[in-house]
Amino acid sequence: MLTYIYMIAITAEGMSGALAAGRRNMDIFGVGVIAFTTALGGGTIRDILLGNFPVTWTQHPIYIYLTVSAGLLTVVIARFMHHLRKLFLLLDAMGLVAFTIIGCSVALRLEYNLVVVIMAGMITGIFGGILRDVLCQRVPIVFREELYASVSFLVAVLYLALDSLGVHQDINLAASFAFGLTMRIAALYWGLKLPTFSYDPGRWH
Amino acid sequence: MLTYIYMIAITAEGMSGALAAGRRNMDIFGVGVIAFTTALGGGTIRDILLGNFPVTWTQHPIYIYLTVSAGLLTVVIARFMHHLRKLFLLLDAMGLVAFTIIGCSVALRLEYNLVVVIMAGMITGIFGGILRDVLCQRVPIVFREELYASVSFLVAVLYLALDSLGVHQDINLAASFAFGLTMRIAALYWGLKLPTFSYDPGRWH
Amino acid sequence: MLTYIYMIAITAEGMSGALAAGRRNMDIFGVGVIAFTTALGGGTIRDILLGNFPVTWTQHPIYIYLTVSAGLLTVVIARFMHHLRKLFLLLDAMGLVAFTIIGCSVALRLEYNLVVVIMAGMITGIFGGILRDVLCQRVPIVFREELYASVSFLVAVLYLALDSLGVHQDINLAASFAFGLTMRIAALYWGLKLPTFSYDPGRWH
Repeated sequence: MLTYIYMIAITAEGMSGALAAGRRNMDIFGVGVIAFTTALGGGTIRDILLGNFPVTWTQHPIYIYLTVSAGLLTVVIARFMHHLRKLFLLLDAMGLVAFTIIGCSVALRLEYNLVVVIMAGMITGIFGGILRDVLCQRVPIVFREELYASVSFLVAVLYLALDSLGVHQDINLAASFAFGLTMRIAALYWGLKLPTFSYDPGRWH
Repeated sequence: MLTYIYMIAITAEGMSGALAAGRRNMDIFGVGVIAFTTALGGGTIRDILLGNFPVTWTQHPIYIYLTVSAGLLTVVIARFMHHLRKLFLLLDAMGLVAFTIIGCSVALRLEYNLVVVIMAGMITGIFGGILRDVLCQRVPIVFREELYASVSFLVAVLYLALDSLGVHQDINLAASFAFGLTMRIAALYWGLKLPTFSYDPGRWH
Repeated sequence: MLTYIYMIAITAEGMSGALAAGRRNMDIFGVGVIAFTTALGGGTIRDILLGNFPVTWTQHPIYIYLTVSAGLLTVVIARFMHHLRKLFLLLDAMGLVAFTIIGCSVALRLEYNLVVVIMAGMITGIFGGILRDVLCQRVPIVFREELYASVSFLVAVLYLALDSLGVHQDINLAASFAFGLTMRIAALYWGLKLPTFSYDPGRWH
């Protein structure tokens, strides 16, 4: 089940990467690379940080084909995508939750301590988008727009709490998805953001 | 033979990094770091992604000296470099082909599957330039200008095809270089580019 | 002793990251992430490059709490920080020296060759700041302002020279700190910079 959601999620993330590449007028090769990086970059950084070799996608070429194809497909259907905006945001939210839970699971299996497990979930959830924004020359939006990284954090905490309480994995997944999707959709609907820190120095590092 | 071409290649890439640093008015320390990163960053990322430790340059200090020296030398001769533009682009093209083949070889030896082998070649070929552009605050040019990443991709495919057909390594190298250099030079000469994807959203991630 | 200085140092670096995030109007989650990355990113990249798994901070959650807390605290006290500018720069200079020495020690222990040991020190010292600047969309200041990377380099060389001469570790640390702090403070006081390389091409990669 989580695998299917994961594959939907990396497809959605690949499309989000392609759109960002299109805003920078990249060629279709760049679109494929950014799509791949957005979808699989978070998991890659998690695997490297945790010393979890071989990196996941190197053992599952299907993920590579899927994300690059999603990116290239986006080039064709981009003109219609504003009609699909809500669907797209929903898929992206599913991806955020799925990535977070998968990231936590990997770190749990490797027996890292709890705060690292939570961070592994969040890194999987949000670093693909950060890499996308760095490669496309934007300040990472996950730190500026509606609740996103925070949803990943709360999902990780909830998932681990239920897991440690011995809740059955299926129920835990259902609860985490229900909670995460509700949070994210509510954040988008009401424009919920974290407080912002604005600092304007004279000359300062 | 490939080793000599590799050393010429990292020298050329180091110089390209230095020029990019110069466009951002970096100090000579920054020039050295960007030169090193441009020349050896692609191979470093490949080694990390493939779990191929120790990373290559840590075992060959000569590569470090060579790339940093190339960067610093560039500071001295930059004013003459527009006279050397064609030579420089030729060396850069040789580097692209050499990096790609070396990257494929490393992944082949580690018995990764074919698509990862191709990606390892491309990552070695193009990620140094991507790191250079990120550190120098540019949208990566490998995704915007004349065919570059595509040449790396096609060279990887050709090299692996000939290799799997049992073609002798020397002949394979000669053919891959002939093909790759011709492609890249033709792309520069005729301004060949991939189609570009331009996307201008209203407000959109 | 070095451990205490290290903890002061990552606190100072976390605060520097938070200020940079504040210049980009990030939310408090972004502030925490940038604080963490600035403080622990250099050591993380060192560990990955050297194949030194598990990455240090994954085994010491206290470092995670400390850096994120320092970032969030900065949000509260930012308005008073211009009064603390000199203290802050001193802590930052202590961090640079401490990070450099720790980075060298790690690479020495793993028996890398000398130039890699020096680079490990410098990477630990300066790459947190580079990651901060990349995530906050700035050209890395360590390559443009008063001597910083150079101080890291010279501290590494001095520390290794005294170490190879058999100087007692405590005396070596004292000497390295005295030298590094003096250099960095002198650079700030007199505005010492390395020569800059400015290159303005017509159209050039």
